[in-house]
Amino acid sequence: MGIVVQKFGGTSVGSPERIHHVADLIINEYKRGSKVVAVVSAMGHTTDELVHLANCVSEVKYKREMDMLLSTGEQVSIALLTMALKSKGMDAISLTGWQAGIETESFHGNARIENIRTDRMKSYLDEGKVLVVAGFQGMSAEGEITTLGRGGSDTTAVAIAAALEADVCDIYTDVQGVYTTDPRVVSTASKLDFVSYEEMLEFANLGAGVIHPRAVEFAKNYHVKVSVRSSMESVPGTVIGEEEVVENQSVVKGIAFEEDVTKVTVKGLPITVDGLSVVFSSLANKGVNVDIIIQHIVQEKMNISFSIKTEDLQDTLVTLEDEKHQLQFDSVQYEKDLCKVSIVGSGMVSNPGVAALMFNILAEEGILVKMVSTSEIKVSTVITQESMKKAVCAIHDGFRLEAKAKDSVETM
Amino acid sequence: MGIVVQKFGGTSVGSPERIHHVADLIINEYKRGSKVVAVVSAMGHTTDELVHLANCVSEVKYKREMDMLLSTGEQVSIALLTMALKSKGMDAISLTGWQAGIETESFHGNARIENIRTDRMKSYLDEGKVLVVAGFQGMSAEGEITTLGRGGSDTTAVAIAAALEADVCDIYTDVQGVYTTDPRVVSTASKLDFVSYEEMLEFANLGAGVIHPRAVEFAKNYHVKVSVRSSMESVPGTVIGEEEVVENQSVVKGIAFEEDVTKVTVKGLPITVDGLSVVFSSLANKGVNVDIIIQHIVQEKMNISFSIKTEDLQDTLVTLEDEKHQLQFDSVQYEKDLCKVSIVGSGMVSNPGVAALMFNILAEEGILVKMVSTSEIKVSTVITQESMKKAVCAIHDGFRLEAKAKDSVETM
Repeated sequence: MGIVVQKFGGTSVGSPERIHHVADLIINEYKRGSKVVAVVSAMGHTTDELVHLANCVSEVKYKREMDMLLSTGEQVSIALLTMALKSKGMDAISLTGWQAGIETESFHGNARIENIRTDRMKSYLDEGKVLVVAGFQGMSAEGEITTLGRGGSDTTAVAIAAALEADVCDIYTDVQGVYTTDPRVVSTASKLDFVSYEEMLEFANLGAGVIHPRAVEFAKNYHVKVSVRSSMESVPGTVIGEEEVVENQSVVKGIAFEEDVTKVTVKGLPITVDGLSVVFSSLANKGVNVDIIIQHIVQEKMNISFSIKTEDLQDTLVTLEDEKHQLQFDSVQYEKDLCKVSIVGSGMVSNPGVAALMFNILAEEGILVKMVSTSEIKVSTVITQESMKKAVCAIHDGFRLEAKAKDSVETM
Repeated sequence: MGIVVQKFGGTSVGSPERIHHVADLIINEYKRGSKVVAVVSAMGHTTDELVHLANCVSEVKYKREMDMLLSTGEQVSIALLTMALKSKGMDAISLTGWQAGIETESFHGNARIENIRTDRMKSYLDEGKVLVVAGFQGMSAEGEITTLGRGGSDTTAVAIAAALEADVCDIYTDVQGVYTTDPRVVSTASKLDFVSYEEMLEFANLGAGVIHPRAVEFAKNYHVKVSVRSSMESVPGTVIGEEEVVENQSVVKGIAFEEDVTKVTVKGLPITVDGLSVVFSSLANKGVNVDIIIQHIVQEKMNISFSIKTEDLQDTLVTLEDEKHQLQFDSVQYEKDLCKVSIVGSGMVSNPGVAALMFNILAEEGILVKMVSTSEIKVSTVITQESMKKAVCAIHDGFRLEAKAKDSVETM
């Protein structure tokens, strides 16, 4: 009898009615013959409310005490979901992170899972119980309650699936799976049946948002089969797994995009060994995430362009100004109201001309590419915000993503 | 350097402002040179809100999951109070019940503390930290989160004081201490400087309500000095401790009373060995708390009268009806709208005539005594509800309780 790990986010357990719906999904899986471990987040806005309380008490965020505070959110969810299961006649038991044996680093606010002691979970599963485990939290070697940071519940679910050698880790969300692109932008966007871990990492990092990249990374490292599916509609979702070598595989799987991008250019840097290092270390220390970086040399001087989230622009400008004396650059320019559009697909690596086709499509639409970045499985372009929708639709059409998806639905 | 345990109830930590006030009280104690352990309850109405959520999810109360749910309430409080302390520059750390080493029975909803492993608390105290411990909760030997039931936070505080051999356990409340009687009923009621454990047990059980009887019992067994005091006004409270042999000690310490009492009389029972046993076992199984019991024999038949809380009347009548066939009694009568008024004092045991004086006072007021019960340190009477205030005032005057209290204030 196989083990299935099911993860339910805060929206899925946001009210007593939704908790009962989740209980039904768990019972359905149990009745199909699986041993079930459900991993849940805090209810709806609970975390926000707890953070608000903390803000009222102290301006400073004390990380250990924030973990102590926030970890109560999932503890409430597991208790309520277990009550719902038991009220429906299911033998179930709730477990906090420390009770489930989730051992983490001794680091508060953003700890990584180091080990999972599975003995307690296994003995309950052997008794035929459904387990309801608090996501997002664990315990350090010193007996401290820790939290895993953003996407923590996804990571808990995948890590438990790895430790228990589960058949699959089902991530329940409010969408049906991973799409070729955002259906709100491209009406013909269609659900993918399968994406590889690497493709999903690109989708996740680029803002597809159905599963946290840390969890995908974990799944990749431990070969956990993940399925992203809807908690509202009973339809197959998108499986995330090892890339299989298949002929006629589609080259481009989908299109990811990200709004509110700003391109910053530092002009006229002297050419030194540590110039790049100083610039990007300073920005990293300020918490600014730099995405695409381009360096070019003009007349014995160096220009550096990079893209950031527009919300980080102020920090970026201040940081550069602080370092101006050391860096000795001429000027800083920036361009706001940009966006990033990327095509993703494992097949790209063996298919030359994919990037060229993308540039052709954009050129035909009269869209100027401001920056380009490529990896083995993606091509990213920075363009103006206002041309984003046109670009995404044109690329979606150009790579025939809607047609491919329809084929796969027919053969399902 | 002595250890002081301070307990703050739900009202005291009911808002961010109150939490900061509690933090100030803790810091004041620390500055006086004490090592401080603060024990806190869940904020204000948190427990009620969690119970409401549980009710929405399941009609049945699953005790293990209720403990999982309710124990989050104190966890929120300890995190917030610790943040407040740290924001004021105090080195503090929060501890859940299991982190503080509170080991309980393997029983949910109403577990008793079996042991406290003090090593973790002691090592933090040695580092100069203020400890903020979650009241009301502990962990069983199986690693389950348990709760201690009503008055649990008082019990946690006293148990920690016993385990750490603290100088005193301060119970902070919204009154200044233990009074000769309820000041809302008798305007001349005054605060007592000292009551013995035994006296306090009678006061607590009879409804004085400032500290839970279980905690007093614990303090008595482990010789913990307890002080009940106001969290709002900085005045000495009431010390609860070992009775000291003092001449001229006041015979009666105070007057406790309880409203909504009903007297039930079962008439015409055959005289059998197990009649009493059957009646009161059945009632106990229904959760009916019987207080005063009087048995008398009339013409080869037995009558039993007992007092209960009026809210238990329906259960009592149904239970008796169910047992009628076995018990073979003639009829059941009851009298509602009664109350119980008791005088309490350790000196009573060596002072004959105390009960007589009480009856005289009631007789002079024209108040009929319906039931009487006595112990070494108290005399309880059941009278009509409408005469309660008159009775309490008259007894308070008759035993000169207001005068005695004024003397003790002068000598303070």
